[in-house]
Amino acid sequence: MVAGVIRAGKVLVVAGTHGNELNAPRLIDAWRRDPSHRPDSDLALVLAIGNPEARSAGRRYLERDLNRSFDRTRLADASAQELETLRARELLAAHGSEGSDPCLVALDLHSTTASMGNSLVVYGQRPADLALAAGLQGRLGLPIYLHEADAAQTGYLVERWPCGLVIEVGPVPQGVVHPTVLLQTRLALESALEVLAEAHRGPLRLPRELVLHHHLGSLDLPRHEDGAPRGVIHPLIQGRDWQPLRPGDPLFLGETGETLVYEPPIGLSREPVWPVFINEAAYGEKGIALSLSRRRSWPVQRSWGEALSELAATLIPEP
Amino acid sequence: MVAGVIRAGKVLVVAGTHGNELNAPRLIDAWRRDPSHRPDSDLALVLAIGNPEARSAGRRYLERDLNRSFDRTRLADASAQELETLRARELLAAHGSEGSDPCLVALDLHSTTASMGNSLVVYGQRPADLALAAGLQGRLGLPIYLHEADAAQTGYLVERWPCGLVIEVGPVPQGVVHPTVLLQTRLALESALEVLAEAHRGPLRLPRELVLHHHLGSLDLPRHEDGAPRGVIHPLIQGRDWQPLRPGDPLFLGETGETLVYEPPIGLSREPVWPVFINEAAYGEKGIALSLSRRRSWPVQRSWGEALSELAATLIPEP
Repeated sequence: MVAGVIRAGKVLVVAGTHGNELNAPRLIDAWRRDPSHRPDSDLALVLAIGNPEARSAGRRYLERDLNRSFDRTRLADASAQELETLRARELLAAHGSEGSDPCLVALDLHSTTASMGNSLVVYGQRPADLALAAGLQGRLGLPIYLHEADAAQTGYLVERWPCGLVIEVGPVPQGVVHPTVLLQTRLALESALEVLAEAHRGPLRLPRELVLHHHLGSLDLPRHEDGAPRGVIHPLIQGRDWQPLRPGDPLFLGETGETLVYEPPIGLSREPVWPVFINEAAYGEKGIALSLSRRRSWPVQRSWGEALSELAATLIPEP
Repeated sequence: MVAGVIRAGKVLVVAGTHGNELNAPRLIDAWRRDPSHRPDSDLALVLAIGNPEARSAGRRYLERDLNRSFDRTRLADASAQELETLRARELLAAHGSEGSDPCLVALDLHSTTASMGNSLVVYGQRPADLALAAGLQGRLGLPIYLHEADAAQTGYLVERWPCGLVIEVGPVPQGVVHPTVLLQTRLALESALEVLAEAHRGPLRLPRELVLHHHLGSLDLPRHEDGAPRGVIHPLIQGRDWQPLRPGDPLFLGETGETLVYEPPIGLSREPVWPVFINEAAYGEKGIALSLSRRRSWPVQRSWGEALSELAATLIPEP
């Protein structure tokens, strides 16, 4: 093929990128078993389980986090041979935009122990991603976390597809299939497919504003000198994802009962911040007790919708 | 020593019998670091982490569930050499009632993804256990699940001590330290220690009635012929542990959206049942979607308190 030419492709729906997030894979199982229950879609879909081995083991991953394994450098490094690196290469070889069964959009379905509700995570500011997120927000009002420029957190799956985002639903414990989370996941996915189908048909109607939560950084728990935690998330912010946090507000509860308040880290103004992923189980090992963002309202650019429509024009219709 | 003579002993407090239940171990860590924050107790305590290897791995267990590994037959079987079987023998050798640092009471601190609140689990009908549970219920009003006579579920830790029960707190995801769960765990433990201290000093004041939820059996999810689940816990009972369920009430939601109602299994009357451990993450692998119990009110027997006081008289005071 000629480089730079966009081939036709499908929409990739990935569930179980983390093996202990069971809700989206349960949907995929049911749809594979009986395709008549699949979400209505005008577009051809590929349904994939991200990390089947980790799912069988009931663990987030076996050797490394699959959703931090899509860095181009890592993928090109022949010495990187972890199970998840191999799986990342396999997914791209099969369903990457230049794969054997090419997909142009990746919708990666996750769940979280944090009280994120039904929400979206977008990585960077690719116009087509922002258009897809704006279209979804216009339909369902979902909050959006825009993650970018964090050197400690890279290699997300959807970044390796021309367009893509994460649907993130919580709270739900790892290892639990929850009826409401199933419904939320299906609803967000169906709406994303509707936006893509509209963009496939022609110009996309988008809201005038995109409200997003722009990643600032992450905070670890307070710790003793030997690294052991010396506090927990404060009960007054536990479960309050997407709510503003101001300097002086309770943040952590020390192990002797004292309240530790939020003070802006060096380099951050005293404006409120909006915490997300508060007390996500999987982030303990990453040293993240919560992440901080700033709520912003951006005017929706015409160029975003054009980028998505141009891409979506080459999506293959459902046969 | 002479068999049948009760030696003096301490109170064993076990946390992290399951390695991904992080709340109680966090308390133990803090109390070991700074004993001045330990719960007030008139009695000598031993604080133990049940399964440190599983805790390090962030998993419930490594080779088998430690809290199903205390069957006498298994413990005596020299060919049983799983990590958890070894650990069970080690705990008994160190802190069993005939161990090197003997303990007479075991308080085993657990958490669950089910909405059990702050609750107790008692195994069988040993009089001292029932007295301890009644004393705790008198102080805190905690609901009690009386588990017995289930051949599929045996080998619980506390059964190998002369007296003991489980403090079970939820909902909390596996792998999450939650400020409220920490507080509930500490509160229940402190109350248990108060009851034991009162029994140690002399006759125990107990309520006149013990309200308990008597185990009937467990239900699995509805499944396809190949064993794959074809439904989930119904949204109308998710989170409704300890609430009565009547024939005809919604129980499961089928994967095509149909409601499956509760009908009594063969051998069970049409009286209401009280579900517990609804959608506990760890029980999926055991084929348990929820357990059923019947709420009963039993008059508290004088002999229960006498049994506990007799035992508690030999507890060693805090030095």
